[in-house]
Amino acid sequence: MTLIKNLTLAGVMLSAPASAYDIQHLEPLSWWVGMQNPELQLMIHGDDIGQLTPVIDYPGVTLDAIHRVENDNYLFVDLTIDEQTQPGSLTIDFNRDGQTELSYDYPLNSRRDGSAQREGFGPEDVIYLITPDRFANGNTDNDSVEAMKEPINREYKGGRHGGDLEGIIQHLDYLESLGVTQMWLNPVLENDMDRYSYHGYSTTDYYRIDPRYGSNEDYRRLSRQAQKHGVGLVKDIILNHIGSEHYWMEDMPTPDWINHGGEFVETTHRREALHDPHAVESDVKAFTDGWFVKTMPDLNQRNPFLANYLIQNSIWWVEYADLTGIRLDTYSYPDKGFLSDYTRRVMAEYPDLGLVGEEWSHNPAIVAYWQKGTERHDDYQSYIPSMFDFPLQNALVNALNNEETWGTGLRELYQSIANDFLYGNPYQLGIFADNHDMTRIYTALNEDYALYKMAMKYILTTRGIPQLFYGTEILMSHPGTDDHTIIRSDFPGGWQDDKSNAFTGDGLTEQQLNAQSLVTDILNWRQTASAIHNGKLTHYAPTDGTYTYFRHNDEQTVMVILNKNDESVTVDTGRFHEVIGDKTTARPVLGGEPVALDQGIVIQAKSARIFEVE
Amino acid sequence: MTLIKNLTLAGVMLSAPASAYDIQHLEPLSWWVGMQNPELQLMIHGDDIGQLTPVIDYPGVTLDAIHRVENDNYLFVDLTIDEQTQPGSLTIDFNRDGQTELSYDYPLNSRRDGSAQREGFGPEDVIYLITPDRFANGNTDNDSVEAMKEPINREYKGGRHGGDLEGIIQHLDYLESLGVTQMWLNPVLENDMDRYSYHGYSTTDYYRIDPRYGSNEDYRRLSRQAQKHGVGLVKDIILNHIGSEHYWMEDMPTPDWINHGGEFVETTHRREALHDPHAVESDVKAFTDGWFVKTMPDLNQRNPFLANYLIQNSIWWVEYADLTGIRLDTYSYPDKGFLSDYTRRVMAEYPDLGLVGEEWSHNPAIVAYWQKGTERHDDYQSYIPSMFDFPLQNALVNALNNEETWGTGLRELYQSIANDFLYGNPYQLGIFADNHDMTRIYTALNEDYALYKMAMKYILTTRGIPQLFYGTEILMSHPGTDDHTIIRSDFPGGWQDDKSNAFTGDGLTEQQLNAQSLVTDILNWRQTASAIHNGKLTHYAPTDGTYTYFRHNDEQTVMVILNKNDESVTVDTGRFHEVIGDKTTARPVLGGEPVALDQGIVIQAKSARIFEVE
Repeated sequence: MTLIKNLTLAGVMLSAPASAYDIQHLEPLSWWVGMQNPELQLMIHGDDIGQLTPVIDYPGVTLDAIHRVENDNYLFVDLTIDEQTQPGSLTIDFNRDGQTELSYDYPLNSRRDGSAQREGFGPEDVIYLITPDRFANGNTDNDSVEAMKEPINREYKGGRHGGDLEGIIQHLDYLESLGVTQMWLNPVLENDMDRYSYHGYSTTDYYRIDPRYGSNEDYRRLSRQAQKHGVGLVKDIILNHIGSEHYWMEDMPTPDWINHGGEFVETTHRREALHDPHAVESDVKAFTDGWFVKTMPDLNQRNPFLANYLIQNSIWWVEYADLTGIRLDTYSYPDKGFLSDYTRRVMAEYPDLGLVGEEWSHNPAIVAYWQKGTERHDDYQSYIPSMFDFPLQNALVNALNNEETWGTGLRELYQSIANDFLYGNPYQLGIFADNHDMTRIYTALNEDYALYKMAMKYILTTRGIPQLFYGTEILMSHPGTDDHTIIRSDFPGGWQDDKSNAFTGDGLTEQQLNAQSLVTDILNWRQTASAIHNGKLTHYAPTDGTYTYFRHNDEQTVMVILNKNDESVTVDTGRFHEVIGDKTTARPVLGGEPVALDQGIVIQAKSARIFEVE
Repeated sequence: MTLIKNLTLAGVMLSAPASAYDIQHLEPLSWWVGMQNPELQLMIHGDDIGQLTPVIDYPGVTLDAIHRVENDNYLFVDLTIDEQTQPGSLTIDFNRDGQTELSYDYPLNSRRDGSAQREGFGPEDVIYLITPDRFANGNTDNDSVEAMKEPINREYKGGRHGGDLEGIIQHLDYLESLGVTQMWLNPVLENDMDRYSYHGYSTTDYYRIDPRYGSNEDYRRLSRQAQKHGVGLVKDIILNHIGSEHYWMEDMPTPDWINHGGEFVETTHRREALHDPHAVESDVKAFTDGWFVKTMPDLNQRNPFLANYLIQNSIWWVEYADLTGIRLDTYSYPDKGFLSDYTRRVMAEYPDLGLVGEEWSHNPAIVAYWQKGTERHDDYQSYIPSMFDFPLQNALVNALNNEETWGTGLRELYQSIANDFLYGNPYQLGIFADNHDMTRIYTALNEDYALYKMAMKYILTTRGIPQLFYGTEILMSHPGTDDHTIIRSDFPGGWQDDKSNAFTGDGLTEQQLNAQSLVTDILNWRQTASAIHNGKLTHYAPTDGTYTYFRHNDEQTVMVILNKNDESVTVDTGRFHEVIGDKTTARPVLGGEPVALDQGIVIQAKSARIFEVE
């Protein structure tokens, strides 16, 4: 099964009919000439393939080493592809006793112009996070796929609901008009698991889009189509673990491929141990080597073949599907040394790629530890430009929900931002009000629409790279439960016969339409606002339930004022003279009359306003 | 008045009877030959003194500069005292028109042997914090002092209760038998304020012990007597502000001596601004230059004369009273650059002096910023070896009070310690369960004696330099109020006719006696426990409501196990093999039978045990 699917994707195996050998996997599926790193390591999987000796004869390509491992079904082959090598089909002969038992034509492609210099994502972008199974069903033919274990069952909250890549392609105009410029899809690699496969975090094939979402080619088509709508594609990649139905679990390349020898031992989730000067090595291992859950075998990235495999796989997808970036799941859980190598090598290939890691900790010192450029207590090297700012997400919800006291309320937001001295580059942090793993923001704010509007205005104007979870723009909510399968409910209008349709607005409530329109307005203004893209953030310590900050560069000064009070307040802008200088007028960016600064700025009860100051 | 008191302490003014001039202050009161820094700057205060020209003629001493300031009543004189200078009386003539108007004999003393190399405090010590007005009244003659504004009023909770240095001297045997090795007194410098002067944080004379506590000589006697009991003396010094009755407020040396031109503007307490890359300078100034309260004028340490004055004053007290260290109040509030100079210069004179700063923040990155050796995001230099660990104090109370859940309970303690990667040297942090500014620990733990015992065992065995607030050992408590004047209640037995007496045990409850005995036992064992003094801390992530850590060096391995459960647990020590090695036996240090490690260790419900593992 896996053999056939790979062959349709990439190289062609030309085995002599009489051969006792075949190749079940040869990965990466293809490669490119002219990469920054001339080295390539192939993993070849097939019964007894270790008995054969690969031989090549291709100008500019040398075979440096053949690694045979304990398991005779695997071979690892090191190639060097010289700078001047021409693209073409690299024939690999697999010999035994002077006899060629198998031949494999391996594609060496040429890169697109400027591939290495591709732009990633940055503060000028907003990333729309989509759970692909739950966004739009564009192709009902792939709702169930015969060879895949789990068929569609939209009635079941934890089941597959039929969303797919085609559904996203059909609604790229929606993303464009909403005003987002990047999309991050929860993982779309094959998850051929018995159940609960819709979330995508149990990879069973690192080189194959799950056919219930579409094909590798569909994924590439999505990327190209999205580019035409000004939307980049960010891939969600899991380096920490696989799904228990991955073929490695039946035929492990080496005994140390999976932590704890392939047996389930749960991780402690105590990431502190990685940094803690008082931690025992066993607590570090308990965190790093433990598994998330029984169905997610934990990869041992200290194995150099596996490390190479994972790094090359990420590069392959960037190059193949023309990605703008990668979101790295469970960032701190893999081996720490590997993460250093991974980020160094990926960023060496694509110096401007977007790379954002998930370190779910409310401790900014722990999140900051991973970001490139951070001053660390140790000599650890890290090259990842962005981390998700979980401390800020937590602070935002608390700041809005909690009463304004000396220690709570808007001060929590201010303090979280004030901790930015810990980060290598706070402007490159991924910021968000919610994501697929937590209470949706509208629910977290107890469906208080006034607070919701404040949250949106905040997250789309403060420093960092905002990420918006699908459905947030139409107030998707799940009061009374935090069931992840409900948090990731179907986006209305993504399925034929849906009662309401967020793409057209049909059937949405007045408030949903208002929310969608607000988000659209901010996002579209944001695209033009250079101060948000590259301006400094300057903020003022909150006073009397208000919090004011500025984004400013030589061209533009944006002022945002949040008022948590139950009454309107008139904010005296005299305090802000260091930023405002001799400017006189505040022009509300979402409509309304310009205000003379010397009159003070009226901010209605429980609201935020965004101004350009001129 | 101030003239007279100073003259009794230090130099002698020999003014010609006919002179129109006199000296009201000449500070430092004296100095020493052979200091590391040969420079000395005198501040001279007297009506029109700026009209005179000081002249000296003393072998080895040169007068480098005379600084006249806007206010004619002040002179600043720079001297250099060469290494070989002999002690003696340095005559300073104050001349005008070739005429000597005044002469002043300035004492140049010799230092005690080894003064510069004095040992400060460290993890081998435990510091007992005393509020001197509230500990023991050893001399009723000084309860009220005629020249001092506030007389004794023991009936009034915010009044002066009569405690004094003599009271402490009389009870040094208590401190010794309790087992503490350092004492930190809340400030004892003159606080000649109208009211609420008992706490000592409103200095009105930097060179005079408040006569209601005793004299400078009494203070020196306390220090010397305490040394005989193995107890060092730590001085509480306030660099940030003075009391509004300080003579500077009536006759300001320079217009910039006091922030905000001597007018009250409250500090924001937003210390975040100091570190925050997004802060405006006005928020930094609002924090640094703002006053604590109206009665505490905020010093501008950017004034170089004031900076010198404060630095020399600290050095003077160390040398004069033979101190082991200084506790620096409101550490982050003075000018940041000054703090760098202050700590550099004080530590240059006494490289092993104890110096511990109060930065009341629960954010370890903010506390850590100040400690010597911390990796910072900026190029700030700091030389203070110790800071108080407010984050740990907060974590301790929460860890004991909060339920054991994924995010709360003992995990909070573990996480706080795991943050030690942020500190230049976590072993040098001052640790405490409470102090004079916060809810007493027994109150904070809702008078749960089991939790109290856990807190004491914890704070006296984890890394750092423990500080114990007077009365904690006898369960002093204040349920229902957090009034500071009640928190700092009188220590029973410190006053004649007290109903109970903690020094003798008379009238204490059974539980108070138990608590006192427990603390005494731990402290006395602690004095002998090298692993607590210099051993590494190794801890294990809490599991099932238990938390285990070790202090260990080549000689000794101490194991501490906390059990928060309502049932006893048997802890399998197999998990601790990295620390325990082939040791076989755990010997309880507070009594009880040795336990074979291979049997598991039984820890009773809600309790902690301390073992030596052999």
